[in-house]
Amino acid sequence: MAHEIKLVTEAELRRTVHLDLEAIDCVEEAFAKLATGNVVMPPVLSMALPDVNAEVDVKTAYVPGLEGFALKVSPGFFSNPSLGLPSLNGLMVLLSAKTGLVEAVFLDNGYLTDVRTAAAGAVAARHLAPSNVSTIGILGTGVQARLQLIAAAKVRAVGRALIWGRDTDKASRLAAEMKTALGIDVSACSDPADLVAQSQLVITTTPAREPVLSADWLHPGLHITAMGSDQEDKNELDPKILACADVLVCDRISQCDKLGELRSALKTGALKGTDTVRELGDVISGSAQGRQSEDDITVCDLTGTGVQDTAIATLALGKVKRANAGTTVLA
Amino acid sequence: MAHEIKLVTEAELRRTVHLDLEAIDCVEEAFAKLATGNVVMPPVLSMALPDVNAEVDVKTAYVPGLEGFALKVSPGFFSNPSLGLPSLNGLMVLLSAKTGLVEAVFLDNGYLTDVRTAAAGAVAARHLAPSNVSTIGILGTGVQARLQLIAAAKVRAVGRALIWGRDTDKASRLAAEMKTALGIDVSACSDPADLVAQSQLVITTTPAREPVLSADWLHPGLHITAMGSDQEDKNELDPKILACADVLVCDRISQCDKLGELRSALKTGALKGTDTVRELGDVISGSAQGRQSEDDITVCDLTGTGVQDTAIATLALGKVKRANAGTTVLA
Repeated sequence: MAHEIKLVTEAELRRTVHLDLEAIDCVEEAFAKLATGNVVMPPVLSMALPDVNAEVDVKTAYVPGLEGFALKVSPGFFSNPSLGLPSLNGLMVLLSAKTGLVEAVFLDNGYLTDVRTAAAGAVAARHLAPSNVSTIGILGTGVQARLQLIAAAKVRAVGRALIWGRDTDKASRLAAEMKTALGIDVSACSDPADLVAQSQLVITTTPAREPVLSADWLHPGLHITAMGSDQEDKNELDPKILACADVLVCDRISQCDKLGELRSALKTGALKGTDTVRELGDVISGSAQGRQSEDDITVCDLTGTGVQDTAIATLALGKVKRANAGTTVLA
Repeated sequence: MAHEIKLVTEAELRRTVHLDLEAIDCVEEAFAKLATGNVVMPPVLSMALPDVNAEVDVKTAYVPGLEGFALKVSPGFFSNPSLGLPSLNGLMVLLSAKTGLVEAVFLDNGYLTDVRTAAAGAVAARHLAPSNVSTIGILGTGVQARLQLIAAAKVRAVGRALIWGRDTDKASRLAAEMKTALGIDVSACSDPADLVAQSQLVITTTPAREPVLSADWLHPGLHITAMGSDQEDKNELDPKILACADVLVCDRISQCDKLGELRSALKTGALKGTDTVRELGDVISGSAQGRQSEDDITVCDLTGTGVQDTAIATLALGKVKRANAGTTVLA
């Protein structure tokens, strides 16, 4: 029996869904539900395709109270840049939580993922960073470097940002772009130790397989969000950092111990177990403590969860409908 | 960067992709590749949603040599009939095996799954049923009862079919419909033991949670394909049947031991292990023996695999393009 399905392209989504406080709030609410509600979130379906230097991840989560639930397909084909194509692509499907019927197909090429990933960074900063963040430091120069900075600047009154990248030119170009976009002082920084020393909030956004941030650089009042690791072989933070932190928070412990910084900390023995690790949703909902003083050192390990996809897809469908955007297909 | 995506509705697919020898051959070839090629097929992502009496399965498989690979979302919302909606729905996405870009979205509401599932039944019959099948017996009266009969009749010169169902009226109505559709003698049979006694090929297509076919009914020369069980709590065949069979074949052992008849046979101890179990692809490719004589009793346990989805989606895209069907979206 044919029913109406909303089909929305990346271009239409970019005009309709933005990295704003509404997106940040909707992701925050999803994390709170993950902590308190009867969320069903199966492990990520991950398919490695070594023959073509690729990997495909599928995430989903059913969040009681939301009208739909998303299923997201994220292909990463890492030889694409040699063909002039981006490595990351994919789409999201929103299904009715009542009937399972397809309600929307977002042909977003990863755009909604970009937004919900950066929004999670802002949620982590909102709940864990010190209240006064005069300088934000960003490690990395990719899409998330840009978006995490934009998102964090929405939850803290930032005066200045520093950007470090292995490629100094890229860091300088991004700094110039962000200076214009945010209207604050943004500059490239050639020494990551110096960047960390000057920052109260540091966000790592790299695909690093060896730590880019040393435990020796920690200082009172620092918050670090590590969002680059989402695979078994990635690692941005010196594992000792997770053991030293006053507060260590994961988006999902059962996922971070396989794909995030938590994995490296457990594997190296820097961390002996997960007893002291908290989940972001618990911190948001108040069932776990976050930062207790401006001097605490806090760390948040983000690997990206299906509830974020369900949250952003639900937000997107509402906005698309109100804007009368997208195409309605009878299928 | 926007690229072309083919969007195809169920109605367009029903006009373009049919349950014919081309579909059967393409599914057979996919099984052969599963046996011989470097196929990547992760375990099914299965999400139970007890709050809404539902379950969502996601299947995928990368088959070297094919231009694309499918990812299929199959929601089963079992309270839908009370809303006048079918329980099963969903869609398939075909991604480029070279770039991961979305090539096609098939808004098929499960139609392609219906076709590839019935096609697998025909492949099993082709390779395992005795060469002379004068009578086919079908247990069940649903969509797959109809399609499995149609598919089997394409690989064996069947003279007659018998249909049994718990609902006698449904069985009679399906028999009348199939008689017209196939132009052979088709009648309802009220006694499943009698149906099995008269048949050389029996296909079970029920959602049974207790066996509907007893080991006492086995006779020389019988082939049974059990395709109803695809969940941990389903069971159509008396577990002893799997132990008695001269040849026992699974579509995928590592899946059937969790979701198929093999699971029940192992759990009850009727079968002590999987040493004697063969895979359908191995039988097709000749690396495992199938039926050795017309008197052998053979059993095939089908749970449905991602390679079938990749095969049928690839076939569908080719046919849709040649027919200039569907809609091309720039996204």
